Amino acid sequence: MNYSFSDKVLGLQPSAIREILKFASEPNVISFSAGNPAPEAFPKDKIAEISKEIFEKEPTLALQYSITEGYTPLRDRLKDILKDINCFVPNYDELIITSGAQQGNELACKVLCNEGDTLICEAPTFIGSLNAFKSYNVNLVGIEVQDDGIDTEKLEKALQDNPNTKLLYVIPNFQNPTGVTMSLEKRKEVYRLAQKYDIFILEDNPYGRLRIKGEDIPPIKSFDVDHRVIYTGSFSKILSPGLRVGYVSGLKEVISKMIVCKQVADVHTNILAQLICDRFIEQTNMEEHFQKLREIYKKKCNLMLSEMKKNFSSKIKYIEPEGGLFVWCTLPSDCDMNAFCKKAIQEYKVALVPGNAFMVHDDDFTTSFRMNFSTPTDEQIVKGCEKLGRLSKELFGE
Amino acid sequence: MNYSFSDKVLGLQPSAIREILKFASEPNVISFSAGNPAPEAFPKDKIAEISKEIFEKEPTLALQYSITEGYTPLRDRLKDILKDINCFVPNYDELIITSGAQQGNELACKVLCNEGDTLICEAPTFIGSLNAFKSYNVNLVGIEVQDDGIDTEKLEKALQDNPNTKLLYVIPNFQNPTGVTMSLEKRKEVYRLAQKYDIFILEDNPYGRLRIKGEDIPPIKSFDVDHRVIYTGSFSKILSPGLRVGYVSGLKEVISKMIVCKQVADVHTNILAQLICDRFIEQTNMEEHFQKLREIYKKKCNLMLSEMKKNFSSKIKYIEPEGGLFVWCTLPSDCDMNAFCKKAIQEYKVALVPGNAFMVHDDDFTTSFRMNFSTPTDEQIVKGCEKLGRLSKELFGE
Repeated sequence: MNYSFSDKVLGLQPSAIREILKFASEPNVISFSAGNPAPEAFPKDKIAEISKEIFEKEPTLALQYSITEGYTPLRDRLKDILKDINCFVPNYDELIITSGAQQGNELACKVLCNEGDTLICEAPTFIGSLNAFKSYNVNLVGIEVQDDGIDTEKLEKALQDNPNTKLLYVIPNFQNPTGVTMSLEKRKEVYRLAQKYDIFILEDNPYGRLRIKGEDIPPIKSFDVDHRVIYTGSFSKILSPGLRVGYVSGLKEVISKMIVCKQVADVHTNILAQLICDRFIEQTNMEEHFQKLREIYKKKCNLMLSEMKKNFSSKIKYIEPEGGLFVWCTLPSDCDMNAFCKKAIQEYKVALVPGNAFMVHDDDFTTSFRMNFSTPTDEQIVKGCEKLGRLSKELFGE
Repeated sequence: MNYSFSDKVLGLQPSAIREILKFASEPNVISFSAGNPAPEAFPKDKIAEISKEIFEKEPTLALQYSITEGYTPLRDRLKDILKDINCFVPNYDELIITSGAQQGNELACKVLCNEGDTLICEAPTFIGSLNAFKSYNVNLVGIEVQDDGIDTEKLEKALQDNPNTKLLYVIPNFQNPTGVTMSLEKRKEVYRLAQKYDIFILEDNPYGRLRIKGEDIPPIKSFDVDHRVIYTGSFSKILSPGLRVGYVSGLKEVISKMIVCKQVADVHTNILAQLICDRFIEQTNMEEHFQKLREIYKKKCNLMLSEMKKNFSSKIKYIEPEGGLFVWCTLPSDCDMNAFCKKAIQEYKVALVPGNAFMVHDDDFTTSFRMNFSTPTDEQIVKGCEKLGRLSKELFGE
């Protein structure tokens, strides 16, 4: 038969990461390419216990259809948590449970952007969100990320050049892939620009609780006097990504529209998973739990950084992250990053993600690549960095 | 701030059913308005046992990120099941797990339809799919459902009138809301028309296993020689809707595009739920399980039909379904259906769904309403039909 795809999905390709992950799952490959939480960070026994309890006490609740907005007690807990950090204003804001923060980010784009409208994001940025936005055929404009966050001068220029901008997407904490944390000054400036050009901000904060050094910086949402920030969060990095539970909070009217779109997307998020998240918060000292996670990630991050320092060619520069899961490495512009990543997987059996995977357009030039420290074991971190060290010196010298 | 929603979601409203369900959840209200499976049909103990086993043996698998396509062993099982009924052709077709069949139906529309393209469906039809299609701003054309399925003459006329038709959406078994089963002849004619006008068919089969009388009729997919049928199925009505596990099968190339769109929608379907479905099929005699379900629904359906016969005004006509969850009732055109439904909930505390909720356009005229027999208890069925009987005779006479 003759057929064609819709314009909006025509150019969509399986992400480059997926292709790399195919190699990465081969035996003998050390994968620094994933974005998975450390398996030892899952409170497995506690979740098993909670799950058993749910099936004993409330099996029908866990198995029957539920409401699109999400399980009310869980929503109330999350509202309270956000209220405490000035990120939720009752009467103005609303919060719903989503199937991962991914769904919240996708729905924000769906309800606010027509095809051709401009959506501005950091460049590089999270590939899952990039593809979500692309799947609605928006005009994506990427703004360079500096060491303290998005380049706000270039951001203002882009806002001037694109009066049809509807949404600015940012990951202020330990951004994926750069690991960069946006400074308080820049958060304020970003908000000021959103006010000046009257656009929404989509603030994605999956890693906020995984700070391993430095002080917490208030979310942009916390100074959102006119309810233009849509804030997404997730249980993926603090409990379990397999459960697919996230949330989105923002102006009631916008969330209402997102509810209708969520209803047609998946009716509601798996209710057993929502109950597990709810009971976990209820039965756990969350501060102690976060402390445990931070210790796991701090140890892994520091190990990777010290092994990189010990082994890598001095040509490879990198930003030491204050949290999250990633280290972003950059080569001088005369070095061939793609050749490095290719040789790393093919000859040295170490999987990295080439930086262009995170760029707005596939052909945007970059000499950066992303390394993940949360998924590999300590032994793999040591061995993988040693191999990459050898390769980097072979290609770029000491 | 000033803002507007995207054109595609601008007109989307929370479904009328949602509003009715608000009343329906009040105490003392007998709800015939839901579409929930009977809670006694959930194999609660078996699911609890399976879940315990998963957390004992494979906790990391159940909690970590998984692949977008879905859990491979479950996909393989479903492919085998579909192969056995000539609904899956290896090398040509592909099958993925979705977050309910709802997601499969939404993604089919997203990948194939531009805004303004025509999508033809039965009228009335399932409200969740209707809203999914509306959320992509397609030109929806509804074709009347007769006692043996969609009116194929009107369908051909619509195909001639709308050369930009991309997709035909049908629920051939025990259609929601009418309960109508499409005859074999009509299935073949529908397929012939899809070939003639070179369009895709989206065949939604959530209730296929819930036949309570008559013989199974082959799915349209089973005579799909040129791979133009996209087939969606679900665990919602045969295991548990709260798990949100469905699947979609069809031409490899189309499914590939749906995978990318699913990835940006929710990364993957809750993996614990997928494992539960997989182990349930593995450890259960499925034919015996379906037989149990059919007995539950047969009993409930027959009870409702006999109580309707005993109590209702003869003005109310209805189709006796061969399966599914619903009885579709129709009043003569001089009767006020909306007044009946309104009085039913407000004065008699019985919730029904007015038929216009299922029409392509809110203002399409209908004197039908939908009754559900799977959710209420036997006692509620008897009491609710008695009340509706009194009301119907009060309004329309014997």
